[in-house]
Amino acid sequence: MSDSISEITTKIQAFVDARDWRQFHDAKDLSVAIAAEAGELMQHFVWQQPGQIEKRVEARRDEIASEIADVGILLFELADNLGLNLGEVMQAKIANNEIRYPVEKARGNNLKYSEF
Amino acid sequence: MSDSISEITTKIQAFVDARDWRQFHDAKDLSVAIAAEAGELMQHFVWQQPGQIEKRVEARRDEIASEIADVGILLFELADNLGLNLGEVMQAKIANNEIRYPVEKARGNNLKYSEF
Amino acid sequence: MSDSISEITTKIQAFVDARDWRQFHDAKDLSVAIAAEAGELMQHFVWQQPGQIEKRVEARRDEIASEIADVGILLFELADNLGLNLGEVMQAKIANNEIRYPVEKARGNNLKYSEF
Amino acid sequence: MSDSISEITTKIQAFVDARDWRQFHDAKDLSVAIAAEAGELMQHFVWQQPGQIEKRVEARRDEIASEIADVGILLFELADNLGLNLGEVMQAKIANNEIRYPVEKARGNNLKYSEF
Repeated sequence: MSDSISEITTKIQAFVDARDWRQFHDAKDLSVAIAAEAGELMQHFVWQQPGQIEKRVEARRDEIASEIADVGILLFELADNLGLNLGEVMQAKIANNEIRYPVEKARGNNLKYSEF
Repeated sequence: MSDSISEITTKIQAFVDARDWRQFHDAKDLSVAIAAEAGELMQHFVWQQPGQIEKRVEARRDEIASEIADVGILLFELADNLGLNLGEVMQAKIANNEIRYPVEKARGNNLKYSEF
Repeated sequence: MSDSISEITTKIQAFVDARDWRQFHDAKDLSVAIAAEAGELMQHFVWQQPGQIEKRVEARRDEIASEIADVGILLFELADNLGLNLGEVMQAKIANNEIRYPVEKARGNNLKYSEF
Repeated sequence: MSDSISEITTKIQAFVDARDWRQFHDAKDLSVAIAAEAGELMQHFVWQQPGQIEKRVEARRDEIASEIADVGILLFELADNLGLNLGEVMQAKIANNEIRYPVEKARGNNLKYSEF
């Protein structure tokens, strides 16, 4: 099984094209689908208190993995459709976050950079 | 720049640990953050009609790329924290979707498999 | 059956307090629950094309009504818990929107006020 | 200022029609907008720990009130467009919840009814 974003994206696009589904997958519809799947993932934790999270993850592991996969599949497709190299944009964002959240200011606190 | 899910995940985890942020990142809080970022991504397309989507993407390309990156970064971290190999769960889901949406039934239509 | 926001809110709060659920309902958890329910509502329309929307609404009318009710119930409770008069904040926002979206500029177009 | 769902809904519909915006407001687009606003509301609480919630509410009170108003306005419009009496569907749901979450089983615990 591949660990490469590009290779997995190629498989996703082949799946979409074999079913002639591109027509339903403009950027808006993919964004809506991503948000819907992210909502399903979050649904597992609604009302859950911190001490209950681990147990909830163990009880629903397969469903949670399935929803994480769904978000990933749609995200990889959207990035590729927009001509973005997902690995590059993610690493550029991490580098950007390194600057906005320097260790000396950010360590151990959850403030947003605009609140430093 | 890496194209490997594992390598990029290692960079994300190093970023989180350097800031001692793991304490704020249980599965619930990561799921909530993913849904919030997915909402920001979708926000670009609220009220947009099909014919306006391409222009919106071009006008907001950098912001959209940034939000796609944010969803990806949080998703890679969540998967890893739960002991999941994201590449594997995604490819397992694609294989599962191949069965639920056989080309002969799914081609050219957007019905859910339960509606076949 | 009441049509009053205040009266319905009183019924919601009585329901919550009878079950001693206030402890689980801080502003964050209510916001998360609202977003989750809004996601379930939106889920009915993922991939749907404009011409399919009416049929989808008719086919899923009861479920959709149930999810709309859920968003409403959580929203009324959150507003009240924050000491807000929901009817007033909504009407204040409508008045604010009247200024930001004057009829002569906004009529027939879906631009955001910042794009005028 | 009115406290009546119907009267406030009439004001919302007048606002929409004066701007000839109904054409952009099918059930899908309203659901997407509701989810987007719910995401903005939730955004205030991302990463926040239980002990920080009250302070966050005080610091961002006006923005939070504005987003609650936005969700409400869109929800009232959607319900009305679908021919639903929002007050009635909400009270019907509360009654339904009374049955699914009887006080003797639900009191003091956050389990879902299917987990009793």
